[in-house]
Amino acid sequence: MKLVEGGITAVPGIFAAGISAGIKKTAVPDLALIVSESDAVIAGVLTRNKVAAAPVLLARQRLRGGRARAILANSGNANACTGRPGIADAREMAALAAGLLGCSADHVFVGSTGVIGQPLPMDRIRAAIPRLVSQLSRQGGREAARAIMTTDTTIKMAAATESIAGRQITLGGIAKGSGMIHPDMATMLAYLVTDAHISRAMLQRALRMAMVQSFNRIPLDGDTSTNDMVLCLANGLAGNQSFSTTGSDGRRFQELLNTVCQDLAKMIARDGEGATKFVTKFVELRVTGARTETDALRVANTVATSSLVKTAWFGQDSNWGRIMAAIGRAGVTIRENRIAISYGDIPVVRRGIGLGQAAEVQANVVLRQREFTLTVHLGQGRAAATVWTSDLTLDYVKINASYRS
Amino acid sequence: MKLVEGGITAVPGIFAAGISAGIKKTAVPDLALIVSESDAVIAGVLTRNKVAAAPVLLARQRLRGGRARAILANSGNANACTGRPGIADAREMAALAAGLLGCSADHVFVGSTGVIGQPLPMDRIRAAIPRLVSQLSRQGGREAARAIMTTDTTIKMAAATESIAGRQITLGGIAKGSGMIHPDMATMLAYLVTDAHISRAMLQRALRMAMVQSFNRIPLDGDTSTNDMVLCLANGLAGNQSFSTTGSDGRRFQELLNTVCQDLAKMIARDGEGATKFVTKFVELRVTGARTETDALRVANTVATSSLVKTAWFGQDSNWGRIMAAIGRAGVTIRENRIAISYGDIPVVRRGIGLGQAAEVQANVVLRQREFTLTVHLGQGRAAATVWTSDLTLDYVKINASYRS
Repeated sequence: MKLVEGGITAVPGIFAAGISAGIKKTAVPDLALIVSESDAVIAGVLTRNKVAAAPVLLARQRLRGGRARAILANSGNANACTGRPGIADAREMAALAAGLLGCSADHVFVGSTGVIGQPLPMDRIRAAIPRLVSQLSRQGGREAARAIMTTDTTIKMAAATESIAGRQITLGGIAKGSGMIHPDMATMLAYLVTDAHISRAMLQRALRMAMVQSFNRIPLDGDTSTNDMVLCLANGLAGNQSFSTTGSDGRRFQELLNTVCQDLAKMIARDGEGATKFVTKFVELRVTGARTETDALRVANTVATSSLVKTAWFGQDSNWGRIMAAIGRAGVTIRENRIAISYGDIPVVRRGIGLGQAAEVQANVVLRQREFTLTVHLGQGRAAATVWTSDLTLDYVKINASYRS
Repeated sequence: MKLVEGGITAVPGIFAAGISAGIKKTAVPDLALIVSESDAVIAGVLTRNKVAAAPVLLARQRLRGGRARAILANSGNANACTGRPGIADAREMAALAAGLLGCSADHVFVGSTGVIGQPLPMDRIRAAIPRLVSQLSRQGGREAARAIMTTDTTIKMAAATESIAGRQITLGGIAKGSGMIHPDMATMLAYLVTDAHISRAMLQRALRMAMVQSFNRIPLDGDTSTNDMVLCLANGLAGNQSFSTTGSDGRRFQELLNTVCQDLAKMIARDGEGATKFVTKFVELRVTGARTETDALRVANTVATSSLVKTAWFGQDSNWGRIMAAIGRAGVTIRENRIAISYGDIPVVRRGIGLGQAAEVQANVVLRQREFTLTVHLGQGRAAATVWTSDLTLDYVKINASYRS
């Protein structure tokens, strides 16, 4: 496998664009379009939140058809809690794009992220769609990625290529979101495209598998926002032969998808709402020695979402007591006196007891880095899980007190 | 029922004191003692965290005996993750106090709150206990309440009196804790005393009932910190006749206990780590129209612990979209188009849809108050639940980044 530049437009047959349609208050990009030059199959994972936005409800219907030509996504307005008019707006967006692209409206998916409960400024969107279509290009991946950002501070795009079933297959994606505080992150959107020739059922299965290894590890779990949406479109232009899920080609395709999703997920965790260049910590949290992977993940998520642990990281304080307390309430069978904790290579807890001031001073040096690893060993078995997270900063509170999500 | 002054020492036969033993870095009170002049029964609810501090393990044993004379509690050090030496220290603290009080060591309970993973400074504690005992008085309730504070900004004490089974019965309590961010609050301690003559079993049942109506409603749920502990001691000095749980005397006793616990719980929610005089919001959150009380509580807790909702309150922004998103992920069956939301008397959502800019502007006026009510109506049934919570402030992050819990 090889990482490549270009994000979604690294993939043959994919055109993209991103422009300012005037949905956001300032003249920044807020409308993105991704188009496949030929018909594609599509798979998707949508929010499990019972308050689902209009574009999510529409995608739920259209995923049953399983075919797609385009994805039209806006930032600045979530089109959530907007009732029937909101659904009509989402449908109209798809229809307008479909008209200009010459495809069925059912083959256009819509995504939205931004303020909840405001009607979309449809006049502006109607006016913008022709301009957006006219700007579609084979270099537009970055512009599309930029146009779906809300409080994101970085553009999130990734692509990789791999030899599968006799052909070089490319897979790219863009994403938007922040892993800052689970279960309260802002909306997560990810749009993946590939030129693989693959059945819709296989693509759906592979996407679910990839989610578990990527976006579900950052701790945001896809069921939280009203608008969360991950779509993967495969246009088959690579012309590869069919392959099976269980064979080596299937495994390579899964790895390709996992890699791109994981890269995007880490970018989300690394960004984190409220991230500023110098204070935010990116933490790889490994839980080992668990009885089951579920146990390992539960402990990892509890530690990774503890506000007390995360503020301690912000304070560059190894404060392992807060980690022990989080482990203890994870709902997993543990023995306190078997737990070991390390920051980077520095052990701070062994057999459930702190290793003293000197160890903590060394650990605090690790915590001064922008990125570090935290390992929690439970001493209960052989299962493990890794998640990626960040600290809880003053800017998180500042941004979310003033930003309207 | 009548609220009275004096906290725990409003109760006949209860002596208390609080002094600085030098456990904390600064010379502030950090060691408290509560003593009943005569033997008492004791009930307790302890943390469900699997990493339980030494004093919790000791209390778990001693609650089986069910009798007590005294509670000795320190702040500044949690005596958690301290292994066998920690348990020996907790035992020694109890034994030292028992020696001076002339009672069995098994009848002295110990509580701790503060930094995890540091050995207690036993030299200082040994030196302080005789001084502490010598300062016991019938006016010492406030000093004891002060000595168990950590990041608390207010002393938490309450007492009330009620005619039960032919006598005037008094019940008082002190507490320590902050409801700031569930499930990450610092340790919650509450020590209740009463002169009621009541069986240990009845007292235990009443205490559990009271917990559900008070400390479990602020959203901190008693299973989170390594040190959480609620004890209730009843010395029987009122000389009342026995009464049954189900009769009117039993109901009045339950109300007396509920009232004092609820007062203390609200003080905790109102304090909130990082509370500063002018920015923190105290929010009474009512969920109505739920199918069951469990559903109502689940929705209430999800909204009350949403970082996005709480930062919006800090920003004095009614931002009902974040509330809708929280309701949707509470794991409860809802219909989006039946939901209504009001701040104070100002409706902002009806049938799942926002009532527009004018309503929000009015709601934002409500949000400028230091205390306000938020009502979420689910339109699913007739069950309801109320919880008390606060906003998420910049000071929360500041304090927890620098404070060693």
